[in-house]
Amino acid sequence: MHRLAVFLLGFGIGLAGDACHVASGTTVYDWTGVPTIWKSEIWFPFVVGLAVLAAAEVGHRAGLPKRARGVNDVVIGASVVLALYALTAALRGQPTTVSVVLCAAIAVAVWAWWDPSAGAFGIAAAAAVLGPVAEMFVANYASDSDGLFGVAPWLPCLYFAAGAVASGVLGALTGTRAAAEPLTPAG
Amino acid sequence: MHRLAVFLLGFGIGLAGDACHVASGTTVYDWTGVPTIWKSEIWFPFVVGLAVLAAAEVGHRAGLPKRARGVNDVVIGASVVLALYALTAALRGQPTTVSVVLCAAIAVAVWAWWDPSAGAFGIAAAAAVLGPVAEMFVANYASDSDGLFGVAPWLPCLYFAAGAVASGVLGALTGTRAAAEPLTPAG
Amino acid sequence: MHRLAVFLLGFGIGLAGDACHVASGTTVYDWTGVPTIWKSEIWFPFVVGLAVLAAAEVGHRAGLPKRARGVNDVVIGASVVLALYALTAALRGQPTTVSVVLCAAIAVAVWAWWDPSAGAFGIAAAAAVLGPVAEMFVANYASDSDGLFGVAPWLPCLYFAAGAVASGVLGALTGTRAAAEPLTPAG
Repeated sequence: MHRLAVFLLGFGIGLAGDACHVASGTTVYDWTGVPTIWKSEIWFPFVVGLAVLAAAEVGHRAGLPKRARGVNDVVIGASVVLALYALTAALRGQPTTVSVVLCAAIAVAVWAWWDPSAGAFGIAAAAAVLGPVAEMFVANYASDSDGLFGVAPWLPCLYFAAGAVASGVLGALTGTRAAAEPLTPAG
Repeated sequence: MHRLAVFLLGFGIGLAGDACHVASGTTVYDWTGVPTIWKSEIWFPFVVGLAVLAAAEVGHRAGLPKRARGVNDVVIGASVVLALYALTAALRGQPTTVSVVLCAAIAVAVWAWWDPSAGAFGIAAAAAVLGPVAEMFVANYASDSDGLFGVAPWLPCLYFAAGAVASGVLGALTGTRAAAEPLTPAG
Repeated sequence: MHRLAVFLLGFGIGLAGDACHVASGTTVYDWTGVPTIWKSEIWFPFVVGLAVLAAAEVGHRAGLPKRARGVNDVVIGASVVLALYALTAALRGQPTTVSVVLCAAIAVAVWAWWDPSAGAFGIAAAAAVLGPVAEMFVANYASDSDGLFGVAPWLPCLYFAAGAVASGVLGALTGTRAAAEPLTPAG
């Protein structure tokens, strides 16, 4: 059940975030006859959901999150990652320096808020490398947004933030660790 | 006294936020001879202040916030709602998908941070319906920002975030619940 | 050691943030033959680093932060200030009302989150006056971004946020006060 929830979280964020990138023209799908869902080709949200689940599984086995995180932290973390995803779409046309510094600063803040541990950093950094490398083979970025070997220069920042939160999401949902702040402390 | 503070908070946020929407051209006041304050017609901030007070009163009677919130949380919450208000102005010209996903993600994060309870969600959702419906009768959105029956498509997100925070603001100010984190824990 | 870390934090944020302002054309360096580092003249990040250290020193002697803050709070605070710095670059071309209200709301939220004390407010307010006044003599803002006596109208907001965080950064790093939330509360 928890793994299904994590998959669906990744599926939903991938679907909504990709819709932003397509709407802003940051990325383009060449027409290939593949069925689409919202603005994505059908395979895209499944791949994102599975990738998020994989990162969550690795993090769970590594004992993450080190910091106590609960269900409402997952809602905040997922929302912030989706907001960063949409922000990258809104930043189309901005100078590379501006969009990269802005997204990098937000990504580091997300990691330090969610779980400032070496383990979460490691998974976030791995995501920041593997995600963009994978996209270099399949994604099609607009010519003003492809400055990092064909993908967007800020893309590692987005994967870093997503990887950081994903690393601890299973631990947070399964309650391996107690919720950071109970909802009704006074009873 | 607390109710006056809540009214003034709504008054101030409405006034500053509306100035952003007028400055960006997102909304326009047809000249009607009504006196103005900053960039708004005089009635606007009063209506916002009263609406915020009404939401706060309903939330207070429902025992909100469920999560302990203090005065400095009110300052943060009010600032974040005003920042979202101004952000919607800055997003003018962005594709609808981008602005709606971005604002929705921020709105959900605000609710989950402020008071992730069913009660706060209910008031936020009610505000997200009632606010835009009311604006359909009185507000005048630019032709590139009126895609939701004459109002902006991201408008329910802004009302959702505002409603979530408003629902618990009286409880937070009256100290019905203890402050989440005392300012000087070590004495 | 801690003071070196604070200086380097200010140095790095100044360097990366200034690169955003130069990249967006918000500020311009007239060519003077002075050596440059990234997009800044060499003296700029040193001045920022020293100014941050000075604010930190004043705050430390005043017993700030009043609220318990730890090393990971410093990472979050520094990232958020850098994000605001980059955001001001991304806002170039927005109406003054929009950028000022947005940056002011974020700055107040940063103060209220980091250390909502009178002492931190005082240092933040002093920075919001002294920083822009100093820049009036040395900085060169674009003609669409110089509405406040030659500097950008949102500049006091950026200095306010930076000053608020700087005021408590030495106390947070030296552990004068315990970390707000230990990383592994459950052991």
